Amino acid sequence: MQFLKTADAGFESAFARIVRDRRESDTQVGRDVASMINEVRERGDAALAEYTARFDSHRLAEDDDWCIPLAACREAYDVLDPDLRDALETAASRIRAYHEGQLPENRDYTDDIGMRLGARWNAVEAAGLYVPGGRASYPSSLLMNAIPAKVAGVERLVVTTPTPGGETNALVLAAAHIAGVDEIWRVGGAQAVAALAYGTDRIGKVDVIAGPGNAWVAEAKRQLYGVVGIDMVAGPSEILVIADGNNNPEWIAADLLSQAEHDPTSQSILITDSDALARQVEDAVDLALMKLPTGKTAKASWDAHGLIVVVGSLDEAPALSDRLAAEHVELMVDEPQGLFDRMRHAGSVFLGRHTPEAVGDYIAGPNHVLPTGRRARFASGLSVLDFMKRTSFIDASEAALAAIGPAAVRLAEAEGLPAHALSISTRLK
Amino acid sequence: MQFLKTADAGFESAFARIVRDRRESDTQVGRDVASMINEVRERGDAALAEYTARFDSHRLAEDDDWCIPLAACREAYDVLDPDLRDALETAASRIRAYHEGQLPENRDYTDDIGMRLGARWNAVEAAGLYVPGGRASYPSSLLMNAIPAKVAGVERLVVTTPTPGGETNALVLAAAHIAGVDEIWRVGGAQAVAALAYGTDRIGKVDVIAGPGNAWVAEAKRQLYGVVGIDMVAGPSEILVIADGNNNPEWIAADLLSQAEHDPTSQSILITDSDALARQVEDAVDLALMKLPTGKTAKASWDAHGLIVVVGSLDEAPALSDRLAAEHVELMVDEPQGLFDRMRHAGSVFLGRHTPEAVGDYIAGPNHVLPTGRRARFASGLSVLDFMKRTSFIDASEAALAAIGPAAVRLAEAEGLPAHALSISTRLK
Repeated sequence: MQFLKTADAGFESAFARIVRDRRESDTQVGRDVASMINEVRERGDAALAEYTARFDSHRLAEDDDWCIPLAACREAYDVLDPDLRDALETAASRIRAYHEGQLPENRDYTDDIGMRLGARWNAVEAAGLYVPGGRASYPSSLLMNAIPAKVAGVERLVVTTPTPGGETNALVLAAAHIAGVDEIWRVGGAQAVAALAYGTDRIGKVDVIAGPGNAWVAEAKRQLYGVVGIDMVAGPSEILVIADGNNNPEWIAADLLSQAEHDPTSQSILITDSDALARQVEDAVDLALMKLPTGKTAKASWDAHGLIVVVGSLDEAPALSDRLAAEHVELMVDEPQGLFDRMRHAGSVFLGRHTPEAVGDYIAGPNHVLPTGRRARFASGLSVLDFMKRTSFIDASEAALAAIGPAAVRLAEAEGLPAHALSISTRLK
Repeated sequence: MQFLKTADAGFESAFARIVRDRRESDTQVGRDVASMINEVRERGDAALAEYTARFDSHRLAEDDDWCIPLAACREAYDVLDPDLRDALETAASRIRAYHEGQLPENRDYTDDIGMRLGARWNAVEAAGLYVPGGRASYPSSLLMNAIPAKVAGVERLVVTTPTPGGETNALVLAAAHIAGVDEIWRVGGAQAVAALAYGTDRIGKVDVIAGPGNAWVAEAKRQLYGVVGIDMVAGPSEILVIADGNNNPEWIAADLLSQAEHDPTSQSILITDSDALARQVEDAVDLALMKLPTGKTAKASWDAHGLIVVVGSLDEAPALSDRLAAEHVELMVDEPQGLFDRMRHAGSVFLGRHTPEAVGDYIAGPNHVLPTGRRARFASGLSVLDFMKRTSFIDASEAALAAIGPAAVRLAEAEGLPAHALSISTRLK
């Protein structure tokens, strides 16, 4: 953990180094992934079966080996602990309600020269969701990825997930039932992403691929961007807590560790104008780390990437926050709106002392798939729009074409595109 | 040119082959581009100067060699032929008006449990526009890329363009003046894209890169996707004309050739229910090709990729059109709305006999940067949203947290994330 004060001489260079550090390993997975994609593209299901045997110790032979039937999802839902089932249903209905508000409106109007213009939104036909296996297999992620697709109107929602040794996650299956997933394939890794993008005899190709995954999955999505749509390039995640001195240090410590427990590459940052709180939080983190079952991961993250910045005044915080462009920003002050209004780059902002980031991970409604690694400078969280596309349209009357056609002819001629000019001028005769 | 009838036995396999064929060469530019990006990232301006000397025969030494001053754009605008200047201004103001209607609305509401939720849109700070040199240097492209960025609210709009032998394009400079471009750098190719993404001593880095380019530029954008935002993966473009028998074949021929004259990889397709019109258009294309100054390119495209499909009824057209997911679709019938309502995948649709596609290239208002190569299945044309990003927010009152917090705690515990659970439960005491 680093401890900085903006008043100190070395602050700017130390902070700039932290902003530059993307915490992303430049591992050479690119070539491996390219060859796996090629194998799946050329040999289809046979390649999938080979990779799945090798990486997941799961044999894809009979039909039943390939798919998890929807009836199994229904069953997982039926036998789930009722409290947990209610919690999933509450989360799903709140996520659905929030995302329904994202549905875009079509445009259709006629302008002053009598030209009708507009744009119409449609859902993609098929979307693929990657669901990790093992430790990172989260029902909340399934809901956050699947519900926007279904709200958008996607007809065919396809999950691929590795089932190492054939094992499945009952909570994830129950979540798939709630979200209305249409197919679940027992395939993981870069090979699953390739199958979704190009299709195989068994797995029909999709138009958009979303969902979290390891470095191989992320690289496969990046390489296949353009062949299909993808949600985003994801990296290690961050939380930034901006807090005045009037806070319970245990709350802040828990918030910082809720990010740190995800992965050793996660980053947790506190900015405060109170020296005393800074020290109290530091102690509270150390204390909590001793009791936390996920303490080992959280400690690795906190030791390597944790940061406390003491500022002279919280007025300095928005500018620092914009440089970090963090995935999550908590504003633990009495009047958070003032700080929020001065911020521009953040994935999601949590206002006030009673809005821990984790409430957004599960149940508040907005999406928890958010831009990481400073990408909030240019990217947005997952939304219904990631599963839709827009068709613009133009409808010119003869009079409207006569009004502006000649200018277009002039431009086409100036650009050396005579057939463009001709297609307009021939209609103006 | 291929001539197919849906009634013929071989139609399905022939059409499926055309849909599959992306007309994109799998050239091995990937490795070259990766090494160029690396050079620029590590050696900055020195690498830019070397590549620019090698590829553009332009020496980057003094400050004046690097930049085209804004005063030169102003001058190009001032001395432009007044008719052409008016045409550019008309185009710019119509493009601006259409794109202003794309500005998204923020959301801010309080739901039934008293939780405030919403999302706020902001422009990115800096955007880069690649402008090709030479033959493909189009003022219309500059307007179509720059105006949405400025409407979005981008403060710093940076153009990079190769100036082979130092030569500039007066029309493009005039368009840059109209659009309000802030910087113009005399750098092209993959090296320019790398400079925009990572920044050099001279060129400040940007958040989003848009604009057309050759295979090297497109590959550089693809490789840098995630480091910065990019507009889209572009490929060879298409026009699909759907026409009844009651059409002037010369109009349709001009429309088909307006696509074909762009590049030998362009594709022009006619779907009609009239055998007679099909033959007339074929003849009209041949006749027009003989007179067209761009005939050589247009003929290469028409010969290799041109297609006429005769259908039994235009009712078959929407399904075929959706499979092609063409960049541009013209509906040359009396009541185009009926066909349009049954279509789902297209970049832009041109309704009625007096709406040639070229009117959309220049002056109608909607963007001419559109998804190509079947990507209209999942992608949209360039818009103001490409230069903006969304920050979601959550503001929970103590009561709202008490209402849904326990369900979130249950989910966090079930996912094995105890610090997530703790960050909520510690506030519920």
